[in-house]
Amino acid sequence: MNTKKKILNDPVYGFINIPGGLLFELIEHPYFQRLRRIKQLGLTYLVFPGAVHTRFQHAIGCMHLINLAIDVLRSKGHNITEEEADGARIAILLHDIGHGPFSHALESCIIPNHPHEELSLMFMQELNNQYNGKLELAIKIFKDEYHKKFLHQLVSGQLDMDRLDYLRRDSFFTGVTEGVVGSERIIKMLQVVDDNLVVEAKGIYSVEKFLIARRLMYWQVYLHKTVLVGELQLIHFLKRLKHLYQQNKINIDNKYLKFFLDDNKNKNNKEILDNFSMLDDFDFVYLVKQLLNHDDKIISYLANSLMNRKFPKIIIGKDPIPDNYIKELKLKTSKRFNLSSEELEYYVFSGEVSNNTYRVDDERINIQYGNKLIDIAEASDMLNISVLSKVVKKYYVCVPKIILNKD
Amino acid sequence: MNTKKKILNDPVYGFINIPGGLLFELIEHPYFQRLRRIKQLGLTYLVFPGAVHTRFQHAIGCMHLINLAIDVLRSKGHNITEEEADGARIAILLHDIGHGPFSHALESCIIPNHPHEELSLMFMQELNNQYNGKLELAIKIFKDEYHKKFLHQLVSGQLDMDRLDYLRRDSFFTGVTEGVVGSERIIKMLQVVDDNLVVEAKGIYSVEKFLIARRLMYWQVYLHKTVLVGELQLIHFLKRLKHLYQQNKINIDNKYLKFFLDDNKNKNNKEILDNFSMLDDFDFVYLVKQLLNHDDKIISYLANSLMNRKFPKIIIGKDPIPDNYIKELKLKTSKRFNLSSEELEYYVFSGEVSNNTYRVDDERINIQYGNKLIDIAEASDMLNISVLSKVVKKYYVCVPKIILNKD
Amino acid sequence: MNTKKKILNDPVYGFINIPGGLLFELIEHPYFQRLRRIKQLGLTYLVFPGAVHTRFQHAIGCMHLINLAIDVLRSKGHNITEEEADGARIAILLHDIGHGPFSHALESCIIPNHPHEELSLMFMQELNNQYNGKLELAIKIFKDEYHKKFLHQLVSGQLDMDRLDYLRRDSFFTGVTEGVVGSERIIKMLQVVDDNLVVEAKGIYSVEKFLIARRLMYWQVYLHKTVLVGELQLIHFLKRLKHLYQQNKINIDNKYLKFFLDDNKNKNNKEILDNFSMLDDFDFVYLVKQLLNHDDKIISYLANSLMNRKFPKIIIGKDPIPDNYIKELKLKTSKRFNLSSEELEYYVFSGEVSNNTYRVDDERINIQYGNKLIDIAEASDMLNISVLSKVVKKYYVCVPKIILNKD
Amino acid sequence: MNTKKKILNDPVYGFINIPGGLLFELIEHPYFQRLRRIKQLGLTYLVFPGAVHTRFQHAIGCMHLINLAIDVLRSKGHNITEEEADGARIAILLHDIGHGPFSHALESCIIPNHPHEELSLMFMQELNNQYNGKLELAIKIFKDEYHKKFLHQLVSGQLDMDRLDYLRRDSFFTGVTEGVVGSERIIKMLQVVDDNLVVEAKGIYSVEKFLIARRLMYWQVYLHKTVLVGELQLIHFLKRLKHLYQQNKINIDNKYLKFFLDDNKNKNNKEILDNFSMLDDFDFVYLVKQLLNHDDKIISYLANSLMNRKFPKIIIGKDPIPDNYIKELKLKTSKRFNLSSEELEYYVFSGEVSNNTYRVDDERINIQYGNKLIDIAEASDMLNISVLSKVVKKYYVCVPKIILNKD
Repeated sequence: MNTKKKILNDPVYGFINIPGGLLFELIEHPYFQRLRRIKQLGLTYLVFPGAVHTRFQHAIGCMHLINLAIDVLRSKGHNITEEEADGARIAILLHDIGHGPFSHALESCIIPNHPHEELSLMFMQELNNQYNGKLELAIKIFKDEYHKKFLHQLVSGQLDMDRLDYLRRDSFFTGVTEGVVGSERIIKMLQVVDDNLVVEAKGIYSVEKFLIARRLMYWQVYLHKTVLVGELQLIHFLKRLKHLYQQNKINIDNKYLKFFLDDNKNKNNKEILDNFSMLDDFDFVYLVKQLLNHDDKIISYLANSLMNRKFPKIIIGKDPIPDNYIKELKLKTSKRFNLSSEELEYYVFSGEVSNNTYRVDDERINIQYGNKLIDIAEASDMLNISVLSKVVKKYYVCVPKIILNKD
Repeated sequence: MNTKKKILNDPVYGFINIPGGLLFELIEHPYFQRLRRIKQLGLTYLVFPGAVHTRFQHAIGCMHLINLAIDVLRSKGHNITEEEADGARIAILLHDIGHGPFSHALESCIIPNHPHEELSLMFMQELNNQYNGKLELAIKIFKDEYHKKFLHQLVSGQLDMDRLDYLRRDSFFTGVTEGVVGSERIIKMLQVVDDNLVVEAKGIYSVEKFLIARRLMYWQVYLHKTVLVGELQLIHFLKRLKHLYQQNKINIDNKYLKFFLDDNKNKNNKEILDNFSMLDDFDFVYLVKQLLNHDDKIISYLANSLMNRKFPKIIIGKDPIPDNYIKELKLKTSKRFNLSSEELEYYVFSGEVSNNTYRVDDERINIQYGNKLIDIAEASDMLNISVLSKVVKKYYVCVPKIILNKD
Repeated sequence: MNTKKKILNDPVYGFINIPGGLLFELIEHPYFQRLRRIKQLGLTYLVFPGAVHTRFQHAIGCMHLINLAIDVLRSKGHNITEEEADGARIAILLHDIGHGPFSHALESCIIPNHPHEELSLMFMQELNNQYNGKLELAIKIFKDEYHKKFLHQLVSGQLDMDRLDYLRRDSFFTGVTEGVVGSERIIKMLQVVDDNLVVEAKGIYSVEKFLIARRLMYWQVYLHKTVLVGELQLIHFLKRLKHLYQQNKINIDNKYLKFFLDDNKNKNNKEILDNFSMLDDFDFVYLVKQLLNHDDKIISYLANSLMNRKFPKIIIGKDPIPDNYIKELKLKTSKRFNLSSEELEYYVFSGEVSNNTYRVDDERINIQYGNKLIDIAEASDMLNISVLSKVVKKYYVCVPKIILNKD
Repeated sequence: MNTKKKILNDPVYGFINIPGGLLFELIEHPYFQRLRRIKQLGLTYLVFPGAVHTRFQHAIGCMHLINLAIDVLRSKGHNITEEEADGARIAILLHDIGHGPFSHALESCIIPNHPHEELSLMFMQELNNQYNGKLELAIKIFKDEYHKKFLHQLVSGQLDMDRLDYLRRDSFFTGVTEGVVGSERIIKMLQVVDDNLVVEAKGIYSVEKFLIARRLMYWQVYLHKTVLVGELQLIHFLKRLKHLYQQNKINIDNKYLKFFLDDNKNKNNKEILDNFSMLDDFDFVYLVKQLLNHDDKIISYLANSLMNRKFPKIIIGKDPIPDNYIKELKLKTSKRFNLSSEELEYYVFSGEVSNNTYRVDDERINIQYGNKLIDIAEASDMLNISVLSKVVKKYYVCVPKIILNKD
């Protein structure tokens, strides 16, 4: 058993101390090491070439930030036992362990019934078994069942270490410097009142700037049009793949993937985790390359599209796309490529996208004025916080570029 | 005449190219070199020790940014002649040349009838004389009398190079990293429509972030309580100094300062400029030190306060301070220090401060959507722009700390 | 044909302008896009988690730096036509296009007769065909057959843009900040004398620092012990794979890889390039995962080692490892794991490594003093330049960790 | 007594925690606050406009670094009591407290018999009196009389926190980025062996880079030609000032300065410190401005030279300037300006400068290999360490520029 202290180099924070003991072992565990092979931002690197950083780096960064936060809170007189600190460290280290590669795509096609949060919990419980119950407290904190609620809020909340790390890290690697968040400065302003995480009054401007930076990252990076089309193509690719596989029209070599493509209901959790933990970005890029010339014209169309970033045109706007227009596009496309109606679904498709995954929900960011707490939405005279919490829907239709060219 | 190209090292932008010819000579001119001896942020360094950067650095930085902006606009197909470019460069280089040391303090006491904008223009006109009319175009641009209005707007407007530099530079040197503005990125988004400066649609998030960062800098740095009290003490110090001087109760050695302390009306512009250009931060710090033990108890009280950063307590809030309360404080103070009513004015004083020097005024930041221009206040669903343009008044009273201690 | 200008976000340099025309098309070409899927530093990310940046980013960065260098040289009065500039840009953009994934490993096992420099040239020639001879000048510059030798030296020489980019980029992503090189500052000091690239006198300290930084990166990053063992394991993995494949003992699905595993001599260049351009990091990580439980104990041992970073112990030093000692290790290992002598080669192996790929060769860095040129080795009284040019050999033996544990 | 914790913003390191108690009070003490008014690099800002940072910032930065170092050494198992830690913090905080403004100039003219190290110690002893002996341990550490020698070495040694801070800070503010030193990384490599500070083996490359960066800063910044001439002019200015003052030919208002200009031998230490602590950069710039038009042509010549950066030409080289040549220059100058031989000394003067203040002296940087210590000079095969320790002398002569123009 390796208990020595380790130091990691991180491009964002410099040196990061890796504690010994259980935390070190969890990092070394194959379940966790898999995160080295999953890009934090999926296909985003097609638009921002620097965005090839991994979920591994992010998870380690979160652990680093929670260490800073624990130090700050302790220095302000809050008692946090070493056991609680370890619980929080483990909870945030593992909070994304259930993330699949290109997560949204995968979640909808490959393991449709297990959202990544649930998988993360399954992994934690399995690791708890493997380590004889030593993750109990971490799981409690993760599930918000521990009485010191602020520990959960550091892991998951409006101003958690997850967001503080990913905004900073994603802006660092994409090169979108406006997204940079002064994580360290916000952490210095944290305070605990009645077991809840709040921000000291003088931190309000930093919180405003954090919210603005977050919004900027959504629209400039996370919901970038090209990334969106790319993900839709990948979803279609996987859908077609599953279809062909289940009809025995395709030969797939990948045993871990096959485990999920088979609609066999009797899969126990351990099997799911073990196979899932062998899937990462590499499997899907590999598949795309192998199917570039497959006989099925749909799968090869999609593979080529993904491989060469030749994506359909996306028309996107605040208003629903008129049905007539979609019909017209479908008609043209169907003629042009000689497609059956089933095939057509892969060439012309419409839908809606919203920022609701990033919605400001019930939890609030409380700002501490003397011994009053005021929600940021009220405390800030500058921000329309309501805008952040609003679900913005956008409607789109995708269609091969050639169809839109002048006749 | 020196026409060789020079390169300066700037901590903020790295290398800065200094053009030869007239620009180089203006930089070398004693009027401009004086800016090396004037801190950009006056007494702010008492709170943020790094904030000792000078107006010289800022002016050079502005010139660097306007060069970038001119390159960007030219690359987008806008014709800017080299003469126009030089005009804009000179205008921004000299835009602050009339700034006095600890500017607000000085402006109100020493040369009350010449706000710094006017002095800047007087300097430019004098330099225009000295250089045989070569600053004509620069002056036109500075006064917004040139038909290509965007050149003036680069020098002075809602999104001018002045603000882009000072926000970035001040946050750099204060260490308040949240104030950092992606100047280079905003500049890349500039565009000209009908001779007016606008921002391309995709730049809207950067503009939002710029406005938030600016606000943050006001409240965290520019209007910092301690800096405010410090400036008020300095104003009182100068007021008392003038009073003593005019009553022959003090011996002042500084000939340039005496020129201004004499209320002799017959001062011609050239004399004003020549004497003004010899005043800088050094004169006032020197005076403070020499008067620490002066017989007049007021001046020595103020000198000691400034020297040792032992400032009175400032009570500040959104509501006017009740007269009764002020009276009570005055009474206590007067007793405690045995003060005449004239002297008392230097110990207890009240007033109001507002951010209206930073007010968003008539000029707008226009965002370009296709061929429509929309004001940021409308285009942004996120920001309460009205808040920025609102004059926020705060009321304060200052009183020696000891008076507020428990009796 | 797309000729519009594009701007890329780069974490290292900020905005990078992508020229339109041929350069844009080359970047879009599948041959070049492959570099998005090849990590710049192979397995280094196992030690430095941030080092997941790609050869794509590096190639774009080099193009950016050569643009800066061309601007600097032009501003110093050197005539560089736009055609020549494009030639240099293309040459450096494509200088690494022949790099395989995990390059050293691959080069030795998969395409043993084509070092990557040769493959790069083959790619350029093929692209020259595809683009009707428009790469002629670029190829001339690449091969150092153009009379303005400095253009070649910008692409490949002691102080070329390749090194200036990779040192800076690699230190940025590994987080080893001591390796940071002031690329922009060195470029400002470049000069051309008699068609050769030299450095102005005042740049000598920057060059010294560049050489020190480079050396530091070799020993701290490029030749890191763990990375070295990792690469050796990968080489063994591929060697075993080829062996099993040629004996029909393994089923391989990857058609592009099979092209190279077959020792069929009749492969034409176009085929080689087309298949090679489909191989990248993803194929090998995929293979490793699929073979974790293969029947052949050697291949599964190696796959597990690579997958879980459970590498053998490496003993490394300046002196050759005594034969006796190696024999002893082999004996113990063979007994312990019950291995045939052929199998043993995969468990215990020795060799030597040297920094000679980084050797300072005949080309010199000339420093310009007035109108004399002095080689850095002479000009610098500080550095033992001879050390840099010296081939440092280290000897190693690798052996399963368990063998070294106390008996 | 104020014991609350304070946080300072530092542009270089971000937040710096200021401990409460004695350290806080020492920082607030007027003796220490004076350092706010002394630029770290004297006249260097005339060449590098950003170099206006103060000795105050540097001293605080040193205290921050020593805190990091103490944390690192404690985490490696070395016992450092809180009292010892405070001693080391105080010693480094005050190590430069005796530095005068434009130090070399002042030391030679104004208080010739008290080098700044001695003054620093006098200040510490006086503060020790004022604080009832609480600085005893700090003084012991400062004087290297404490048995844990590494504490002194952190304050003053080959790799002390002083150098780690000033190199980093000076390169930050001058914008000479090649001088940047990875202070934090070196500190992580510190170790203590037999009560002496050493560096772990893997830190050797960082130490090499530190030495190279230091050398670079000397030649590019600290010994910059223009800075050197500026300082020589200032020395002459002060020499002339003293001369005129002692002959009653000048009226000086500055009481603190007069204390030192009087050659009255009966000055006790307390008086010296109190007057010295009132002298800073401001006094000398003030004087220069007031004497621009003084009747004495020498003092006004020097004042104008300093004010407008119109320095004489400096001819500098490795060989002594031939006497004949100097004579010739003197003859020409004397004629041209009609000077007495006494006056001539202020127009043409020669001398030598050496880097011996920066000499590598007896103390060594020891690198720890296993349980052997090897000096960096031996351990590094890369650096000619002897070069660093060598006293490099340069010879110069200064002469008005006009004298060198073609006749």
